[in-house]
Amino acid sequence: MRQSQLFGRTKKEVPRDEESINARFLIRGGFIHKEMAGVYTFLPLGLRTLNKIENIVRDEMNKANAQEVFMPSLHPKANWQKTGRWDSFDVLFRISSQSKSEYALGPTHEEILYPLLTHYIDSYKDLPVALYQIQTKFRDEPRAKSGLLRGREFRMKDLYSFHATSQDRDAYYEVMRKAYENVFQRVGLHAVETKASGGTFSDISLEFQVPNQFGEDTILLCTHCDIAINIEIAKENTCTRCGGSLSRTKAIEVGNIFPLKTKYAQDFHVSFKDKEGKEQLVAAGCYGIGTSRVMGALVEVFHDGRGILWPQAVAPFRVHLMGFPGKEKESEALYVQLQSKGIEVLYDDRQEVAMGEKFADADLLGIPYRLLASEKTLQKNMVEIKKRASQEPEFIPLQRIEEYIH
Amino acid sequence: MRQSQLFGRTKKEVPRDEESINARFLIRGGFIHKEMAGVYTFLPLGLRTLNKIENIVRDEMNKANAQEVFMPSLHPKANWQKTGRWDSFDVLFRISSQSKSEYALGPTHEEILYPLLTHYIDSYKDLPVALYQIQTKFRDEPRAKSGLLRGREFRMKDLYSFHATSQDRDAYYEVMRKAYENVFQRVGLHAVETKASGGTFSDISLEFQVPNQFGEDTILLCTHCDIAINIEIAKENTCTRCGGSLSRTKAIEVGNIFPLKTKYAQDFHVSFKDKEGKEQLVAAGCYGIGTSRVMGALVEVFHDGRGILWPQAVAPFRVHLMGFPGKEKESEALYVQLQSKGIEVLYDDRQEVAMGEKFADADLLGIPYRLLASEKTLQKNMVEIKKRASQEPEFIPLQRIEEYIH
Repeated sequence: MRQSQLFGRTKKEVPRDEESINARFLIRGGFIHKEMAGVYTFLPLGLRTLNKIENIVRDEMNKANAQEVFMPSLHPKANWQKTGRWDSFDVLFRISSQSKSEYALGPTHEEILYPLLTHYIDSYKDLPVALYQIQTKFRDEPRAKSGLLRGREFRMKDLYSFHATSQDRDAYYEVMRKAYENVFQRVGLHAVETKASGGTFSDISLEFQVPNQFGEDTILLCTHCDIAINIEIAKENTCTRCGGSLSRTKAIEVGNIFPLKTKYAQDFHVSFKDKEGKEQLVAAGCYGIGTSRVMGALVEVFHDGRGILWPQAVAPFRVHLMGFPGKEKESEALYVQLQSKGIEVLYDDRQEVAMGEKFADADLLGIPYRLLASEKTLQKNMVEIKKRASQEPEFIPLQRIEEYIH
Repeated sequence: MRQSQLFGRTKKEVPRDEESINARFLIRGGFIHKEMAGVYTFLPLGLRTLNKIENIVRDEMNKANAQEVFMPSLHPKANWQKTGRWDSFDVLFRISSQSKSEYALGPTHEEILYPLLTHYIDSYKDLPVALYQIQTKFRDEPRAKSGLLRGREFRMKDLYSFHATSQDRDAYYEVMRKAYENVFQRVGLHAVETKASGGTFSDISLEFQVPNQFGEDTILLCTHCDIAINIEIAKENTCTRCGGSLSRTKAIEVGNIFPLKTKYAQDFHVSFKDKEGKEQLVAAGCYGIGTSRVMGALVEVFHDGRGILWPQAVAPFRVHLMGFPGKEKESEALYVQLQSKGIEVLYDDRQEVAMGEKFADADLLGIPYRLLASEKTLQKNMVEIKKRASQEPEFIPLQRIEEYIH
């Protein structure tokens, strides 16, 4: 992609109505545009990164034998009344239609998926079922001041699993825990598994918390082994696993997994006939990842004073080619060569922009590898590569670039 | 994918609350599940087809140098008041938040994109801009009885282009017209270019209409050349291009393109400095395709009494492998071979289902090619292939299957 054509230019001024680091850098870099508190448009660069995060999530969910579906955002009021959440869900958006029907605007999808299941589950042979979607969610948050960390409208992967026995559910819960570890490892986040409250519908939950001073949660992190406990439910002063001491830290919750109690199954009569022909309620779990929040958390964790430092797997482009005045021919040639290798490249071909500004923009955008073409390097089939403007460059053979930037 | 594992089984009974052919077959086939009138969940098979349609649309928009963005569904009331559509848009969903703010639930996105543009456009050098998204839209339709043809919540690609002059816009309008022709040709629909009213914000529009008895529109189709005129604006009795006679026919509108007048640009002051430094309003166009409606239209056009007949490009799988009792070993071997070739295959490995039922299900699901494995064919490295249960089979070499099913 030629940067001269890219929609969403960089801005020098810090947005005055944003407190969070992620919103400030993402807006200045042209990744997102603020519509109102907690509501953003994803511009081309931002959508690329969001898609990369969501495709990693999708890949891990598919590997765990879950099947992707797409549920609606308009939910019948009756479903939410059945679970009691029409009145009790504190951040539910409620809508009235012309025909006087009322709808909930989906903040989560138990109220859709449980009743749907009753149409497809009769026997233990129809189980297990694991369904997920990656979708926009709506929550009427009173305060939305943390950029992508807390949205009124945000992106989420939600998965629901259904099993004949709670033992089967517990086994799948472990599969999901591993899948979550893989997701966060692949996007580049260190997410600590944190015991937390299960709320009304579960005895306990496991949160994936990224330690960060701007997180809204407080966790007690074991200084010895890599687990934590949410301060909401902490009763001990030492780690329950290794006895190590606990350190109080702020953290960003990027995912959570719940073994559900049977409340929803009862509300919607989601039952099946077991091997003996006896009617049983399904055992279930639910599993969420806030994909746009993951994007915000990445910026909170990976930045310096100049801008973002994306991990390679989620960077909007794999390399950033810096066009140099007087070296247009060489830069164009390198751009063509990189594209022919199938490498996603952002090519700063802007003619009227000074090199200092190009480097400042590159530091803001945070694509991990930036390349420079010169006559000398190209003649030798070499590329000059560096990770940050201030860093010393390395020279590597063009044919080995894919190993290097992987 | 093993059919024994696929979520969303087929149903014999015709859904009583659905009149439309597309909803009846799509629900019976397990492609979609009805939540309420005009609101559906896409089950795994249905989501596969929807994704294929949307990826074809995405590919053609990218080829036309448009850039993908993702705008929110919650729109500030003030934006809709500025265009006057807060009160005049007849199917607008309006929401109140806890903080007493009011939002529109996006049925279209002029009210978001025009004000956004003012932050990124100063000079004629910043133009042209073409941005699109593929996204869920919301419309408070009083009657939603046509399955995927008219939803309260539905999928849509909307593209907006901005230019320094109306001549530039007209040139891009032609590029889009061609892109639309490509989209409909690739998904397998014969969509007739139909002159239609431009509504309030345009002098004229071009609709892409699929002649079909269950369409909600009426067009006058030239019996000689392949164009039409919407009856809403028809003044002549003969074709304006060739003088041929016009035939009145029902049709499904699957897309439309509008050269916009300057109303929105005025409302939001979307202007730029031209080469002489003079302030000018942008010229704009907007271009929509209802991607879920395209899916419904495909079923209305391509079906027989037994079920759907998907065009290959949008079929949920490329081939349907029918497991035969006693031929499990051969079927499994063929399944592995097809997968190793990267062919998307739905493998009916269900043990307890009679062959007659398997064939009936295959006719309902409508994957264009169905394969059978037998000892004889596999020994010769051949595959038995047919398009419909009633058809005579052909025998083709396994290594040539990709040519055959393309």
